[in-house]
Amino acid sequence: MEPQSPSGPPTIVDIRITPIAFPDPPLLNAVGCHEPWALRAIIEVDCGDGLVGLGETYGDASHLAVLRTVAPLLIGLDPFRTEYVKSVVDGLLGTVDAPSEKLGPSGGMGPEKVSLRVFSAFEVACLDVQGQAIGRPVHDLLGGRVRDAVPFSAYLFYKWAQHPGDAPDLFGAALDPAGIVAQARTMVQKYGFQSIKLKGGVFPPDVELDAIRALREEFPTLPLRIDPNAAWSVETSRRVAAETQGLLEYLEDPTEGLAGMAAVAETAGMPLATNMCVVSFDHIPEAVDRGSVQVILSDHHYWGGLRQSVRLAGICETWGLGLSMHSNSHLGISLAAMTHLGAALPQLSYAADTHTPWQLGVDVVERPLTFVDGAVPVPMSPGLGVRLDRDALARLHENYLRQGITGRDDTGYMRRFHPDFNPTKPRW
Amino acid sequence: MEPQSPSGPPTIVDIRITPIAFPDPPLLNAVGCHEPWALRAIIEVDCGDGLVGLGETYGDASHLAVLRTVAPLLIGLDPFRTEYVKSVVDGLLGTVDAPSEKLGPSGGMGPEKVSLRVFSAFEVACLDVQGQAIGRPVHDLLGGRVRDAVPFSAYLFYKWAQHPGDAPDLFGAALDPAGIVAQARTMVQKYGFQSIKLKGGVFPPDVELDAIRALREEFPTLPLRIDPNAAWSVETSRRVAAETQGLLEYLEDPTEGLAGMAAVAETAGMPLATNMCVVSFDHIPEAVDRGSVQVILSDHHYWGGLRQSVRLAGICETWGLGLSMHSNSHLGISLAAMTHLGAALPQLSYAADTHTPWQLGVDVVERPLTFVDGAVPVPMSPGLGVRLDRDALARLHENYLRQGITGRDDTGYMRRFHPDFNPTKPRW
Ligand SMILES: [Mg+2]
Ligand SMILES: [Mg+2]
Repeated sequence: MEPQSPSGPPTIVDIRITPIAFPDPPLLNAVGCHEPWALRAIIEVDCGDGLVGLGETYGDASHLAVLRTVAPLLIGLDPFRTEYVKSVVDGLLGTVDAPSEKLGPSGGMGPEKVSLRVFSAFEVACLDVQGQAIGRPVHDLLGGRVRDAVPFSAYLFYKWAQHPGDAPDLFGAALDPAGIVAQARTMVQKYGFQSIKLKGGVFPPDVELDAIRALREEFPTLPLRIDPNAAWSVETSRRVAAETQGLLEYLEDPTEGLAGMAAVAETAGMPLATNMCVVSFDHIPEAVDRGSVQVILSDHHYWGGLRQSVRLAGICETWGLGLSMHSNSHLGISLAAMTHLGAALPQLSYAADTHTPWQLGVDVVERPLTFVDGAVPVPMSPGLGVRLDRDALARLHENYLRQGITGRDDTGYMRRFHPDFNPTKPRW
Repeated sequence: MEPQSPSGPPTIVDIRITPIAFPDPPLLNAVGCHEPWALRAIIEVDCGDGLVGLGETYGDASHLAVLRTVAPLLIGLDPFRTEYVKSVVDGLLGTVDAPSEKLGPSGGMGPEKVSLRVFSAFEVACLDVQGQAIGRPVHDLLGGRVRDAVPFSAYLFYKWAQHPGDAPDLFGAALDPAGIVAQARTMVQKYGFQSIKLKGGVFPPDVELDAIRALREEFPTLPLRIDPNAAWSVETSRRVAAETQGLLEYLEDPTEGLAGMAAVAETAGMPLATNMCVVSFDHIPEAVDRGSVQVILSDHHYWGGLRQSVRLAGICETWGLGLSMHSNSHLGISLAAMTHLGAALPQLSYAADTHTPWQLGVDVVERPLTFVDGAVPVPMSPGLGVRLDRDALARLHENYLRQGITGRDDTGYMRRFHPDFNPTKPRW
């Protein structure tokens, strides 16, 4: 490497990709149960002289392999030139659709852009580098903050009391309305969340509606959502929509596909939201034509990073669609990226999803961002504003090497205990 | 003002808005003739300590009045928070459509967002401030450059030899195919342009097609476009499209309105482009539904600045539309802004329009960007990379005060010499 002049652009001199695993509670969904370990990959884009940008992305084996194939091509590039980095990634991977790995209930549902998933991890790290290099927070690179704190929602799950064979976890079981309400109470008390999402698709819809009604009773003013991950038929979805009229701020992915969602939207009294039938820019024109959805959940991890998420937000604004934010199990780098993005998006019209509470304080960053009244105050320090905790990274990487899971398989895990479990949709 | 710490964010302490006028040749179009003076307004967003960002926008009286109303509200704001600045502008002006002032052949055709026109001028200046403050070129704030030079097209006009009563100007008359070819030859020789646009709508289409054919003969390999500013009927447009099959890279605004354009697009063998029927985000959904256009001409001056132009580019990519760039008479701040934007847009699929050659070297910046082989090399210095020439600004402001024009009126000017001139469309 040439020595860099202080005013010269930074250059990527090294990229480190570290797979990690962290404990995950037995959260239930339409395709099974979270395994005892959740995987992520931590990206370090190193520009020398201590200038290191962070990214966090999926940790499944096939994604790791692609990340590792791409990384060497980025050495020597200017981290400010993210559109050029994108063109390098596109050049290697192509921009054709390819089915995603099983990434849980939303994964494998439709084609996603591999190149956008891969680019995203590097883009966020490049933006972190940029912010650090210029002494400004990442949201300033996206148009600046339009809010001082980004609201998140309490993300409730039906769950077992523990992973089979383990001791009960701190959350306890939630397998009926009382359990869900208790979980919500704990989350709202601890984090101050001001809206609530229930992951459904686990029990028959009428049972889950009882939980929604119990939540409404306990929290008369908090917006409520339910997301059965397309476990319902069109007919069932229409019935549920009719019965929950006035109860839900939106109904998320009640049924599968753009046609099915459009059929539900025709009669539903509330907006339909999705992170399943619209997961790439290619899906939007047909979704708009059919009127399939009224809210799109952004997720910078698969939409192609923070600037592509801004692009999505601009499209939502243009077509009068609402914008919310999706999450998978994640740690503090992703939370920071989501917060910077959320800070800069005037279009963000709903509290964002986050799995943060389920990770019980485990993190790879030294001082994770925290929640105040259900919102994360927007960081004002340079870059993403979080620093890697190298001891934690080493420990979580040890977990990864030790525990043996290399890809998410909620269905396979469920079948270990319930061999007849059949997630074929529509279940109801 | 509080003293600013070196690492603290800059703050807008003053905004100066200076209307200017510069000589404009008698360029002909569908609604008349350019007057002897073209108007612009130069924006200085001053953050103190010599940190001043530049913007260039329309100079007509009504636009000036709105700029002056908005400016005081921006004092004290952080120039990195452009989305917040936008919300302040929207808050004052509303986001409802309002008809634009007559801005030449494209103006007044449809509602445009006043707030976006006004915000744009300040946004570009804020981005210039940002770039200067962090020592990076503006394109780095938009995702970095994807090209090292931005291609522009030779923008040919039918014209008189001089403004009536003046001495002949340096360009001479261009009122027939030979005149147009001579003009093209001069421009291509001087600037190296590698594509050519003819402003049409002045003579009957068959006469203008003779000019196109003469250009094809003289420049066998250069892409050609014609733009009659909607002077033609649907029927005429369809006939011209059929006759120019294989001759034009795109046909720009042959006829008026989304319905008319869609009718032409049905049979046309080349893409239809527009800067008339799609001039605001509100127009895009219907344009897409109808298939009215295949190429949208961006123009940061009315689309709401550089980041809103990036939004437009992302929409074009999503719906498979081409992206080109429109220009009105402009000086070097606008050329720099267009170049930074063009540098960062992977989607820019055509050479951009520019009026630069028609301004004969008059400028408000010290060292205007220059053309090499028809393209402007992308500046790498901080901010927009151009500095205000204060003497020139004073002279051009003197022009403004002296010459008396306060709004563009191509039709009124034409009627002074041809009282029966009638631009009612379709003329042919
Ligand atoms: Mg979902
Ligand atoms: Mg035009």
